[in-house]
Amino acid sequence: MYQLAARLFPICRSITGKGTRETLEIIKEILPMLHIENVASGTEVFDWTIPNEWNVFEAYIEDESGKRIIDFKDNNLYVMGYSSPVDRFVNLEELKKYVYTQEDQPDVIPYVTTYYKKRFGFCMEKNRLDGLRDGIYHMVVKSELKPGYLTYGELVISGETEEEIFLSTYICHPSMANNELSGPCVAVQLAKWLMGFEKRRYTYRIIFIPETIGSITYLSKNIDKLKKNVVAGFNLSCVGDDRTYSYVASRYGNTLADKIAVNVLRFHYPQYKSYTFLDRGSDERQYCAPGIDLPLCAICRSKYGDYPEYHTSADNLELISPNGLQGAYEVYKKCITALEYNRNYMVQCLCEPQLGKRGLYPDISKKGTYGEIQNITNFIAYADGQNDLIDISNITNISIEKLIPIVIKLLQEGLIAEK
Amino acid sequence: MYQLAARLFPICRSITGKGTRETLEIIKEILPMLHIENVASGTEVFDWTIPNEWNVFEAYIEDESGKRIIDFKDNNLYVMGYSSPVDRFVNLEELKKYVYTQEDQPDVIPYVTTYYKKRFGFCMEKNRLDGLRDGIYHMVVKSELKPGYLTYGELVISGETEEEIFLSTYICHPSMANNELSGPCVAVQLAKWLMGFEKRRYTYRIIFIPETIGSITYLSKNIDKLKKNVVAGFNLSCVGDDRTYSYVASRYGNTLADKIAVNVLRFHYPQYKSYTFLDRGSDERQYCAPGIDLPLCAICRSKYGDYPEYHTSADNLELISPNGLQGAYEVYKKCITALEYNRNYMVQCLCEPQLGKRGLYPDISKKGTYGEIQNITNFIAYADGQNDLIDISNITNISIEKLIPIVIKLLQEGLIAEK
Amino acid sequence: MYQLAARLFPICRSITGKGTRETLEIIKEILPMLHIENVASGTEVFDWTIPNEWNVFEAYIEDESGKRIIDFKDNNLYVMGYSSPVDRFVNLEELKKYVYTQEDQPDVIPYVTTYYKKRFGFCMEKNRLDGLRDGIYHMVVKSELKPGYLTYGELVISGETEEEIFLSTYICHPSMANNELSGPCVAVQLAKWLMGFEKRRYTYRIIFIPETIGSITYLSKNIDKLKKNVVAGFNLSCVGDDRTYSYVASRYGNTLADKIAVNVLRFHYPQYKSYTFLDRGSDERQYCAPGIDLPLCAICRSKYGDYPEYHTSADNLELISPNGLQGAYEVYKKCITALEYNRNYMVQCLCEPQLGKRGLYPDISKKGTYGEIQNITNFIAYADGQNDLIDISNITNISIEKLIPIVIKLLQEGLIAEK
Repeated sequence: MYQLAARLFPICRSITGKGTRETLEIIKEILPMLHIENVASGTEVFDWTIPNEWNVFEAYIEDESGKRIIDFKDNNLYVMGYSSPVDRFVNLEELKKYVYTQEDQPDVIPYVTTYYKKRFGFCMEKNRLDGLRDGIYHMVVKSELKPGYLTYGELVISGETEEEIFLSTYICHPSMANNELSGPCVAVQLAKWLMGFEKRRYTYRIIFIPETIGSITYLSKNIDKLKKNVVAGFNLSCVGDDRTYSYVASRYGNTLADKIAVNVLRFHYPQYKSYTFLDRGSDERQYCAPGIDLPLCAICRSKYGDYPEYHTSADNLELISPNGLQGAYEVYKKCITALEYNRNYMVQCLCEPQLGKRGLYPDISKKGTYGEIQNITNFIAYADGQNDLIDISNITNISIEKLIPIVIKLLQEGLIAEK
Repeated sequence: MYQLAARLFPICRSITGKGTRETLEIIKEILPMLHIENVASGTEVFDWTIPNEWNVFEAYIEDESGKRIIDFKDNNLYVMGYSSPVDRFVNLEELKKYVYTQEDQPDVIPYVTTYYKKRFGFCMEKNRLDGLRDGIYHMVVKSELKPGYLTYGELVISGETEEEIFLSTYICHPSMANNELSGPCVAVQLAKWLMGFEKRRYTYRIIFIPETIGSITYLSKNIDKLKKNVVAGFNLSCVGDDRTYSYVASRYGNTLADKIAVNVLRFHYPQYKSYTFLDRGSDERQYCAPGIDLPLCAICRSKYGDYPEYHTSADNLELISPNGLQGAYEVYKKCITALEYNRNYMVQCLCEPQLGKRGLYPDISKKGTYGEIQNITNFIAYADGQNDLIDISNITNISIEKLIPIVIKLLQEGLIAEK
Repeated sequence: MYQLAARLFPICRSITGKGTRETLEIIKEILPMLHIENVASGTEVFDWTIPNEWNVFEAYIEDESGKRIIDFKDNNLYVMGYSSPVDRFVNLEELKKYVYTQEDQPDVIPYVTTYYKKRFGFCMEKNRLDGLRDGIYHMVVKSELKPGYLTYGELVISGETEEEIFLSTYICHPSMANNELSGPCVAVQLAKWLMGFEKRRYTYRIIFIPETIGSITYLSKNIDKLKKNVVAGFNLSCVGDDRTYSYVASRYGNTLADKIAVNVLRFHYPQYKSYTFLDRGSDERQYCAPGIDLPLCAICRSKYGDYPEYHTSADNLELISPNGLQGAYEVYKKCITALEYNRNYMVQCLCEPQLGKRGLYPDISKKGTYGEIQNITNFIAYADGQNDLIDISNITNISIEKLIPIVIKLLQEGLIAEK
């Protein structure tokens, strides 16, 4: 995962343009079944319109001596996203009108965009800008803003039922790592893992889209199907560092996705940070909008907006780590495994079954005996037709990982059955 | 408001009698539309009977030298409410049988009544009574207890709908200020404010009644109409001092009145005191009784029964203040304004609307941008048809005052509509 | 109660056998209406089969000198429950294979059983076993394991309705006192108390059974009747010491039995220990199993599994006390009394009734008057048809003991009626 992130890092992505397509092509190398879709500029998608396609060829600021102060080749954050072309000589005072800095973090390049308003601009470390001497500067952006396409990728891994688990991640951020190359990298790894199984209960739909306009576009084309089939979904974003785990709830925090996320995190990393929908900021804004109402939430490592490097050049390959990506991957695997086993199991006899005759209960009863097999008896006690596996895990304080072998054993013995 | 309180203060009010009528006439000077109603003694009202009308002409205790120890002219609390007439010479020991004091507050005159049992009596500062020397005292109460009327005032300010906001306050307390001249004074001011609007969504019904027997009388005559029309009501009592704010819940704390009161107080004065229905003591006892079940609660400043001056001569014009009255008035205005705007608003597009093209979203997106317009997006996220405006305020932690301009703007843009 | 416990203590009880029958015969002396039932070994009861009957005649370990190291006559815990017969000479090393000790409590004899697996064995104080010298030991168990009966007792005290309160306790433990002679002793006392009333609203069914296999047997024969009639039940176990009170919830803690137990304990012993169904361990395991679902919980003193003497010889007559038994008895009496009075009472007039004319309200009204009769007015306020007596107690914070006289008075006055 980390290697993929490193390979994708230098590419200049935005909500449209060649960088996005190049990124999708690399992902398609790994996941050949990935379907790549292009939607034309000007297409109306709900309340929005797909903007023109933006591409940058060259961009820099030179001083009088011809020395390049900043250069798009060094870091694509130096150019404001969707900057119009410019080729102009200005004095320092004038220059500063077009250069954005992060006041409270003077050593980083901020990430700034102007998707829906035509203007040109640069971003730069505040300390560097402050250090510039009076003089004439040459501002150059060789970019193109013209009708083209918004591009996204979609992968469907079919299962035994049409019911779907929906995973969404985004490929519109330029050179930043936690937000956002971690999401696509973990999504690719999950796809590989899912395809490794002979069969799956659920169908899995994984999409790689530009944020906001991409999810709105995707929803406008697929909403009926998604509302019919999706039983749980996750927005994969900021899953690369290793400082914490975070949970971002759906609108009311009451979907199956929320239920499984909270259960898995509670056992995996009990001190995880819990955010309500008021703290949202990624594509759950669209997926959980009124009328859309997909059962989707997010599990992050350090969440967008809530770590200092967010949306700056400091969100780089040093911020994320193989361990950080792996941890997020493991948590999502646990969520998916739990969903695959999540049924309403029902005990098949009245009163407690005699576990002893099935070798599940010690044949000597002494102080403490009952405690040893408590996980089994507690599972059985709540396998009463009112609870799914997640409910039983929550009630009994036994992780789903520990419950699954019990489920398998009791199914074999005929002591429980799916309701 | 304070001036009105000062003007009304000296009048001897009780649950019936000339003082009550005089009080209502003064209110009618300010609110000429006030309708004054008289209900005859002996009328049966639910489980109760309207008592005889009581009027006092003179009352005092004189010592042997003819010096008046206490005189009704100085403070009408010196006579027990509903005291029978008496004209008797007694020694000190005998006198003490008829004089009520507040043991734990020796410098105040307590407020004592005997509405439903015929007896005579006086009230007095304990220290003064203890200071009396042996001797002969002359007890005189020239009062009259005979068939008459229970009198109350009613003001209806009509609105666009028959649905009503119901405000009740009481005019049966003699010379006490927080409990109770503050209630009628704030009610008068709210009436003037409400009449100043060109139109109102709700019809407003404001009644000025004697406590307990008055609300029972009013309910016995109007219960069907009230149950049909009242959507929220408030009992205005103890709204004059400036020590705190209090909330007294309805029977289950779950009416629209409770919901708005709790919401407004939470933003206005978060450290407000919250009382359950177990702490009730004013006319919510009747309005929220089983079978009556009006959606009514109370917002007070220092609540009856819970401040030391309560029901004594220390609850005087120094205890209340223009600021205290104004604060309560403002809170009730906020409640009413919120109720007028409280609808179930529903967003009119799928996914988030594009606020940028409507000038509601900054056209440059950088770190923190999303936070700036969060109040709007959070309102929209929960304008999903499940929530009224108060719900959205509670969920999003945005006061209704801040939400109203957003509602107005979004209605103008056609982005939301009433459900 | 304590005397009965002392009389029953030495008898060697198990899930079957003569000791159990002897115990039931002694209880029948006190409760002649007790019906004793025998169910044959081999009978299938749900997932279980009634085992052979076990009886012990003699059991000991002798050393070479013929000195009895342990003797069943001294304490019946020395023999493992359901031990097969043995008569064998062994060296110390071999002996230790058959002797069970409690590692962390070296001075007690542990209570160990082998109901469903044929083996022989002894139990012993660890310190004593460690002190034995090398040599030849003679292990003797003269016991019999052959088809016989599982025996239980049942007492039905009929009431005005067929609705039942169900009490279950067990008589399968050998010489231990809190767990379990306390349960049968308190149950006997409750039966005597209940029979002392002229009439009872509910029918009372009290059973004395062996734990687990006994309740499963009883349920397999009576489940339809119990599900139809039982409105609340309690499992009486560990009700003899005086260290604390405990509550063990039903599967979801939401039955009438739970409701009354929590209410009574809250007023009687607010610092009681509260256990969920995850902490169960006695016959609530069967009564509250899925599909059985009897509305039953348990109130204990020190709960099984949660006191150091549990299932050892230290759970003896010194651990329990007359006071401990009496406290549990009183709590169960309170629960039963509350259940007998627990109805949905409904106030019969609109607005508050005039309590004064019925002598229930002081005829002088002064500061604090209202507080004095608050228990009455609070009861009336919530006698609105939505609450039973327990609900009103919970809402108003008035114990049911204090509410019952109010209920009686208001029924007499015709101010409330059963809904």
